[in-house]
Amino acid sequence: MPISLVTGGAGFMGAHLVKELLALGHEVVVLDDLSGGHADQVDPRAEFIEGSILDAELIAAIFAKHRFDHVYHLAAYAAEGLSHFIRGFNYRNNLLGSVNLINASVLNDVKCFVFTSSIAVYGGLEPPMREDMCPHPEDPYGVAKLAVEQDLAAARAMFGLDYVVFRPHNVYGEYQNIGDRYRNVVGIFMNQLMQGRPLSVFGDGEQKRAFSYVGDIVPVMARCVSVPAAFGEVFNIGADMPYTVNRLAGSVMTAMGVKGEMLHVEARNEVKYAWSDHEKLIRTFGPQPSTPLEEGLARMADWARRVGARTSRRFEAIEIERELPPYWVQQG
Amino acid sequence: MPISLVTGGAGFMGAHLVKELLALGHEVVVLDDLSGGHADQVDPRAEFIEGSILDAELIAAIFAKHRFDHVYHLAAYAAEGLSHFIRGFNYRNNLLGSVNLINASVLNDVKCFVFTSSIAVYGGLEPPMREDMCPHPEDPYGVAKLAVEQDLAAARAMFGLDYVVFRPHNVYGEYQNIGDRYRNVVGIFMNQLMQGRPLSVFGDGEQKRAFSYVGDIVPVMARCVSVPAAFGEVFNIGADMPYTVNRLAGSVMTAMGVKGEMLHVEARNEVKYAWSDHEKLIRTFGPQPSTPLEEGLARMADWARRVGARTSRRFEAIEIERELPPYWVQQG
Repeated sequence: MPISLVTGGAGFMGAHLVKELLALGHEVVVLDDLSGGHADQVDPRAEFIEGSILDAELIAAIFAKHRFDHVYHLAAYAAEGLSHFIRGFNYRNNLLGSVNLINASVLNDVKCFVFTSSIAVYGGLEPPMREDMCPHPEDPYGVAKLAVEQDLAAARAMFGLDYVVFRPHNVYGEYQNIGDRYRNVVGIFMNQLMQGRPLSVFGDGEQKRAFSYVGDIVPVMARCVSVPAAFGEVFNIGADMPYTVNRLAGSVMTAMGVKGEMLHVEARNEVKYAWSDHEKLIRTFGPQPSTPLEEGLARMADWARRVGARTSRRFEAIEIERELPPYWVQQG
Repeated sequence: MPISLVTGGAGFMGAHLVKELLALGHEVVVLDDLSGGHADQVDPRAEFIEGSILDAELIAAIFAKHRFDHVYHLAAYAAEGLSHFIRGFNYRNNLLGSVNLINASVLNDVKCFVFTSSIAVYGGLEPPMREDMCPHPEDPYGVAKLAVEQDLAAARAMFGLDYVVFRPHNVYGEYQNIGDRYRNVVGIFMNQLMQGRPLSVFGDGEQKRAFSYVGDIVPVMARCVSVPAAFGEVFNIGADMPYTVNRLAGSVMTAMGVKGEMLHVEARNEVKYAWSDHEKLIRTFGPQPSTPLEEGLARMADWARRVGARTSRRFEAIEIERELPPYWVQQG
């Protein structure tokens, strides 16, 4: 029975992945600092360790205790737009934390390191994004993700650490952190509807994204460690069909059964169009399910109504206040 | 009179740059932790602050006291080959330290941020390296340098921080740290000759580099803050003519007036050929001087004989010992 570590396993994608790995017969250990996740989202069949990927001593101890076959590294603070204003925090969490895990994986002969990168590595390139495009990250979050990808390639060349990188985009679904004002537009919309507040849309809302249901993504991530053809490779993953944020807002209202107002706030510095090509993924892993947006939103809405609205806290350690989108500053 | 901060100003390139800036009429403050530099290399007309770029509080205090027009960020631990084995140290020093300075430069309205990146961002691409090639760093040092370049581009787009990036390669000359066993092949050779030891060459010595005299590089770096066409741009800088390491060894012996032995040790994981195209630099800054290798080596040899041999200490905080080149492990 393979033993797998899932970082961020109390978070959104991690919680789903843990269940998928358990179903595949893995023994699962979860490391999560609960900064974005919830302990009650960790499947009770997994061992849960509350701690940070920044704690190199803790990581050494965990790796010494368990003989991990695989590491699924999902822990990150994935607030792309906010990353401009929290550069230091971003690189510590998303790069140095990853490097602690890469070091430990080399030292402990991990068989495969699975890393969730992001469509953010492409920045404002012309969609659809393809893996053979030259990456062009335009925010510190994307810079950190690309650096980890490159560090993994160096670790494989030097030490033989096999890895698989996924670049998901705009993933939504049950267990998503709906209490973070800085990320996850679907979750933000659902939370706002439950609070009786208007849906906040940056700019004209005509920016397009391919919103991807989490249930379509985690099965491939779970299984990739058994697909040697995927080792050392990078894969886009997610839905093919782009929707505007305006259209998404309407669909979320339908799913929640609530007619809300839309509040268009000042545009922020973000990529206008971003979606991906998935030909490489299909070539390597076969055809993948694609849950229609309405169906995925309905499932997430059922869950969101059950857990209820969550308070959206302000990020406390902003490093640069200048140019911070006014909506993020004003919002109560 | 412009006020400039030079990080790493007690180090090799920094010490030269400080003199150049003073000659141009800048008021100069040097920040250096003396991990690779020497306090007596700092021109006494500059203000010297001993401290680390990792100390964000110190940086905030320095920027509050001085109103810097320009930041020349040269501080780094530029041991490319060793960076595989000191990943965490590398990213803390070379990325997080840089980010501390970028944050402070945004917050304090610095006019131009000059960053010394490296040819390492190209990795094993086919030389000559051109700035419009898609970067492909193959070691953590190059990954960190590229991340800083990309972070600067994001900071310029979001906050208007102007910058100029230089990618030098194989720079040598007076003030080089000749007491670091892990980097600076010219300095290592001179130190070995003064110690009566054989010159250590990794592999067959047929790897090629374009060794670049420091005096040809710092004048452009100093002046670039007055060239708006250079803002937001990346430039290769250095010599055009590649030489094998074997040939270099012979030339260093000639310069030092000492006939030494060569010791071919096991090849390490390094790029075989690396040199750069400088058309963009010349187009932007005009024709540049190019000191012949023999002349540059003669100047450096004069200096090296004057300062004498230096003890080459072992790096104490190796994170991964595996695959460390045997020569680095054995060497006393």
